[in-house]
Formats: sequence, structure tokens, C-alpha cells
Amino acid sequence: MNVSLDLTAYLKQNREVVDRALEKCLPTEKRFPGALFRAMRYSLFAGGKRIRPILVLAACDALGGDRENALPPACALELIHTYSLIHDDLPAMDNDDLRRGIATNHKVFGEATAILAGDALLTHAFQVLADVEGSTLSEQDRLRIVGEVASAAGASGMVAGQVVDILCEGDRAVDQPTLEFIHTHKTGAMIRASLRVGAIAGGADASALQALTLYGDRIGLAFQITDDILDLEGDEAVLGKQVGSDLKKGKTTYPAFHGIPESRRRARELVDSAVADLAEFDSRAEPLRAIAGYIVERIR
Amino acid sequence: MNVSLDLTAYLKQNREVVDRALEKCLPTEKRFPGALFRAMRYSLFAGGKRIRPILVLAACDALGGDRENALPPACALELIHTYSLIHDDLPAMDNDDLRRGIATNHKVFGEATAILAGDALLTHAFQVLADVEGSTLSEQDRLRIVGEVASAAGASGMVAGQVVDILCEGDRAVDQPTLEFIHTHKTGAMIRASLRVGAIAGGADASALQALTLYGDRIGLAFQITDDILDLEGDEAVLGKQVGSDLKKGKTTYPAFHGIPESRRRARELVDSAVADLAEFDSRAEPLRAIAGYIVERIR
Repeated sequence: MNVSLDLTAYLKQNREVVDRALEKCLPTEKRFPGALFRAMRYSLFAGGKRIRPILVLAACDALGGDRENALPPACALELIHTYSLIHDDLPAMDNDDLRRGIATNHKVFGEATAILAGDALLTHAFQVLADVEGSTLSEQDRLRIVGEVASAAGASGMVAGQVVDILCEGDRAVDQPTLEFIHTHKTGAMIRASLRVGAIAGGADASALQALTLYGDRIGLAFQITDDILDLEGDEAVLGKQVGSDLKKGKTTYPAFHGIPESRRRARELVDSAVADLAEFDSRAEPLRAIAGYIVERIR
Repeated sequence: MNVSLDLTAYLKQNREVVDRALEKCLPTEKRFPGALFRAMRYSLFAGGKRIRPILVLAACDALGGDRENALPPACALELIHTYSLIHDDLPAMDNDDLRRGIATNHKVFGEATAILAGDALLTHAFQVLADVEGSTLSEQDRLRIVGEVASAAGASGMVAGQVVDILCEGDRAVDQPTLEFIHTHKTGAMIRASLRVGAIAGGADASALQALTLYGDRIGLAFQITDDILDLEGDEAVLGKQVGSDLKKGKTTYPAFHGIPESRRRARELVDSAVADLAEFDSRAEPLRAIAGYIVERIR
């Protein structure tokens, strides 16, 4: 790894880039109906780490692409990530009162508005992808990105993972393939999509797209495993939610299945492979290499 | 109106065309997780009249366009319409047990799966629009359609209307502009979009697009007004839900505001203007003219 890259500074700087782009792509609360835009913005600007959009930008950068073309898909993925958190927190789902240390959307705005704010954020993601302004990407590539995002977010991706996760809640006899299905779909699909849409925005050929997809699959799984470890033993202030909350709900997690030492080992192995996936890339992929490392550093 | 057009037969035949296309665009229940696909298909194939997709096809036909290009947006609009019904029926929203005479999605599959099935249907709409197969439409036009659909369904369209409708529930002092906002957004935006995406799929020039948009705006409002009249005085068997259910919830409706005679007059006036909007079109617009008439025939 290139020791000269200050990952903390990189993440902070790019979080600000993403926040500015998100600010521009979402109407303010002055638009009618104010309650809807307030609810949408409340969760969108609730201190997210912007991991997915930063991965989009970093993938585009790794190919030497034009960042302007990566910003709309970066925003779209964060809008979708935010909608998924709002819906996941609902009483009918995970019934969480806190998210990132603050009250969840439905606790502040009520269930009806929270459901609709989620619906609106999801829909807005596709509006952002369709907006022509600023992008020099071909219509063909932009349509491909719409397909990638929809496929990752929907019934073949994230939503499928969430359905299985909820259906398995409290079921201690969940088998390994089911657990893997939840991981690769609930969080994995959107991480994979981040890399893929960033690659398409950056003009990737088939080989680069394949390498970045593999990298995305591995860090997606590593990210999920480390998140589950943090839920078991992490710091509540860092996590922004109650430690052990997954366990209390009887949620199936990798560490619950394999134990913490094996989970750590597996996360490190995945991160090493993810870095190896980037062998064909030059120094412009340093941020991606550093981000992979950062995932496992969280559980050190 | 061309008396030779048998509208009943036209609607039946085109409903079958739409149903076949929807059948092809949604995975079967054999796909994992079965509960999700069952829930999605339950509401999608619950006997909807397919008004929106038929309008897409009819707009494309009016321009002599290729129907193959209109089928994906037609399916997308029906997927989105279905998701909106599932979410509207939720306990946190309208809390309805019956829809089109059968149990609502959350009554059969539970709230969590119903919310997620709605999310998945909405997302799938954009996947259908992004799928390349079969369409000879330019990528530019297909991207325009993505934008039209997202804009009509989201925070500037349908969702905005639903938010205001829910916030106004039980408020008898709702003013005329607010009532119009609800109508033009909650149902109007998606009807308008049906005509616009059908027009784009049919290769409309600016003038034809404008005419079909106006037609859509007028029949959209007429449709909402007649729906509200039917809710007050209609036949439960025809309506598939309890007569007077809007009234019981204290929902603001056009007839509640203006009375039934004035509402009937307004609906007829809108339909006459909608037919006049189509003056530049030849006999290929007969189905659109007949559909406008059908809307007010429901309240005769």
C-alpha cells in the first residue's frame, strides 16, 4: 500500500464532495410538501459515511475517468442506501429507534411519512440517473447504469436480502447458504453496484469491470462481517446503535455462526484478495486499496 | 366518437396484452425468495384494469408507433401503480383490508413483506425500462422515459400527492389549491406520464407530446373526480372496496368540496376538453377518445 495516502483525509474530502453533490440533487425543504422534503433530507444528511458513493468515485478515479460522470450514480446509490435504512428501521421491520446516534425517521416524522420519504428517495435516485445535465457519458452507458442500480437494489438484490433476513429472524437453524444469500444480497449487491457503476462511468473495459466487480464482492462481504463483529463487541458511540442489538433480535450473523476469531480471519482474507484483484491497476487505485484495509482496521 | 370502436372489447384485448407482458417481465414464484415474488405477483395480478399501461399503448398507437417500444414503459407504470396501492393500504397509511374485493397485500403477507414487495415493484419498474431486449427506441428516448417515470412517481409527483393527502386527512378546512395539488399529483401525475411515455415511445414531435400531455392532465383529473363520486354513491361490488370509505376517513375529495352535481358537470367538461385536445390526431386516436368517454360513463 502507498503509505503516502492519508485515508482519513481522503475520506473526509470525498465525503464533502458527495455531500455537496447530494445537496444539489435534492430539493430543499422550501418545496411543497415541506414535511416530505424535511423527512427525506433528515435521513440523507444524518451523518452517513458515504462509503458507497466514495467507492463509485474511487472506481472511476482508478480508471482515470471524469468524476463528473461518476457523481450522479454516486448520489443515486446514497439515495437508495438511505431509503433502505429508513424502511429497515420501521416498526414492521427492525423496529429501531436510533440510527447513527439519532432518532430514526419514523420516530421523528411518523410511519406514513417515513415510508413515503423512503419511496421518494428510491424514486429520486432514478431521476438523478436520468438527468442529462453535466454528464458526458453516452446514453447507452447511462442506461446500463440505470439497469445496474435497479438490479442491485431490487428483488434480485438488496430487497431479496432484506426479505430473507427478516424471514430468518429468530431462526437459529439458518444454514450457511442462506446466511451467504443474506450477506451477498442485503449489503453486498449495493457495494458491488458501487464499483460497477463507477467503473462504467470511468469507461472500464470488460477486464477492468470484472476486476472491480470481484473487489466489490469481497469488500462487501468483509464489510458485513466486520459490521456484525462490531455489533457484538463494538463501541456504542462508534456504532451509533445499541451494541448487541442484532443478537437480541436473534438475527443471523457471520460471527454468530462461525465465532469471532474465524470471522476476523475470514474478513482479513477477503480484504487481502480484494487488494490482489486490483493488481492490474496503477497508483490511481490506491484509495480503493486503502479502503479495503480500512474495513478490517475497524475490528482491530 | 367513432361508433365502430367497441371499447369493452378493446379494453379486454389490451388488458390481455398488458397481462402477458407483465407476466414476462416479472420472475415467477419459483425464484428465491419465494415469499417476495409471491407477494409482488399477488398484487400485480389482482385484477387491475390496466388503465395506465393501456393509455401508454393507445398513445403510441395514436402516433402510429411500434407497440414493442411502448410495452416496457407500459409495464413499468403498472408496476409502480401496484407498488403505490400496496403502500397506500398499509396500516400506517390508509389501513385498508380490502382492495379490488380481495385482501390487501399486508393482510396476506404481513407488513414487512408488503413494504418490501412494494419497494421491489418500484425498483423493478426501472429495471424493465433499462432492459435492452426488444426495444428499437433510441437510448436517448429510453433515458427520457426513465426521467418521465421517476419524476411522475416521486417527490414531485405521486408521492407528494400521497403525503399531502395523508397530512390533510380529517381536516375539513382543506382549501381548493391543496385539493387540486392532491388530485394532480396523487393520481394525475402517473396518468399524465402514461400519455407522455406512450407519446415518446411512439416518436411524438413537440406538438403531439403537448396535446397528449393536456389530454392526460384532463382525463387524470376527471378520473379522480369520478372515482370520488363512485366512492360516495357507487356499488361496492363494482368498486371492490367499501362505499363511503373515503368519507369515513375524513378524506378530502372533490365531491365533498363541491357537491355531486357540480362534480359531475366538471368531470364531463374535462372529458370534452380532453377529446378536443386530440383534434390533430386521425382515427388512430379513437381508443383515446373512447377511453375519455368511458371515464364519465362510470358515473352515469
